[in-house]
Amino acid sequence: MFNTKLVIAYKGTNYCGFQVQNKSNNPTIQHYLNGALTKIFGEEITTHMASRTDAGVHANGQVVNFKHLKDRLPEPQRLIMAINANLPKDIRVLEAEKVSLDFHSRYNAKGKLYSYTIDNHIAQRPLTKEFTWHVPQPLQLENIKKGAKYFLGTHDFTSFRGSGATTKTTVRTITDFQVLEENRYIKFLIEGNGFLYNMVRIIAGTLIEVGKGKIKAEEIPRIIEVKDRKKAGPTAPPQGLILEKIYY
Amino acid sequence: MFNTKLVIAYKGTNYCGFQVQNKSNNPTIQHYLNGALTKIFGEEITTHMASRTDAGVHANGQVVNFKHLKDRLPEPQRLIMAINANLPKDIRVLEAEKVSLDFHSRYNAKGKLYSYTIDNHIAQRPLTKEFTWHVPQPLQLENIKKGAKYFLGTHDFTSFRGSGATTKTTVRTITDFQVLEENRYIKFLIEGNGFLYNMVRIIAGTLIEVGKGKIKAEEIPRIIEVKDRKKAGPTAPPQGLILEKIYY
Repeated sequence: MFNTKLVIAYKGTNYCGFQVQNKSNNPTIQHYLNGALTKIFGEEITTHMASRTDAGVHANGQVVNFKHLKDRLPEPQRLIMAINANLPKDIRVLEAEKVSLDFHSRYNAKGKLYSYTIDNHIAQRPLTKEFTWHVPQPLQLENIKKGAKYFLGTHDFTSFRGSGATTKTTVRTITDFQVLEENRYIKFLIEGNGFLYNMVRIIAGTLIEVGKGKIKAEEIPRIIEVKDRKKAGPTAPPQGLILEKIYY
Repeated sequence: MFNTKLVIAYKGTNYCGFQVQNKSNNPTIQHYLNGALTKIFGEEITTHMASRTDAGVHANGQVVNFKHLKDRLPEPQRLIMAINANLPKDIRVLEAEKVSLDFHSRYNAKGKLYSYTIDNHIAQRPLTKEFTWHVPQPLQLENIKKGAKYFLGTHDFTSFRGSGATTKTTVRTITDFQVLEENRYIKFLIEGNGFLYNMVRIIAGTLIEVGKGKIKAEEIPRIIEVKDRKKAGPTAPPQGLILEKIYY
């Protein structure tokens, strides 16, 4: 038995998220990945992902691992090319590596880096339309930056968890939060030990309310404290979100 | 009679170039633009473009102008929104401005800025696939930079003109040529007083041959001199090309 780790990138626009959906035929990233690997290895392959990304969410550095009986990794570069030849062009394997049998892409992850990008031009730029949330209203960047700082550290993020979530623990640690601005694009870079369902998108939606002046930056500690989803801002749309990196 | 100038951006992926093709029903940017303006102004509108972009080529700063009998520009912001509401989402008007009757987007243009981007990763990155030329081979960046310098200045660019071109003069001036590299993306920023048909793409294709070592940087002056398209490199594919800006 062998265990292989892959780093993959995908454009999520045309997929119903990463995870295979048992009761539907919706196209998912995992469906295509399992299919390509099963074909190449000649045995039934099931991938385990580091992070479940939702419909429309993208990845530059998703990580998966899978167990297999045949050793196909003496030439990782050829394995990558073989898998990519069997995947749609908007899903690409970037790296392949043999790992110990006890490695699990999700359980061993020490941290994750997400980006979320807002297009603040009056008219949404066509070339970045599929990777940004268009917010044409004027935004107070300094207030957004002030608000972002309150998320740093260890908190119970119940107020920032989407409905339908099933995880028992709601405490997470945000280790870094950068707010960048260039040519009317605002980019959040959020790094943490883990994220609740929709957490990054609800944080982004809340900070845009701060930018519009509808929520004060100083109210964020209280919004965290009350553990009530209704007190936070709206869930920002999926297409602005990119899973950038998984740390081990 | 009035004359209005528009700055527009578009993702060219799903279009057969900018210009309306008289003998076909292929979708073009100009077709949709003329249609939206004709509807809004209530009179037949024909736009004049600064630069004809080919099928699959993008723009962040194309400029058009059009004559009209009705004055619709007292509120430019509302005009922009009205036009955009009648355009596909991958074509956007960014700016609108009343100009003098003798202004012509093409004849008055003093210069143009194009970018061309190459993805030099082993596996093409899905998120930038529609805006880059994938060249997975190792490239000698220093040689590409050296080669780019030879294009600066005023030259007869016959060797870098695509077949089927009809312009009489083949002398053009390149005023600036930047070669940028970041995270395995190579970006050319080429500014000139004008460009022949396919000229930027043939220059990009030639410089990638230089990067691969198939053409020496020092051979470029000779390739220019012989005025023979066959001596230059291949025409780089359209999707890497973006019309960034028109200077007046």
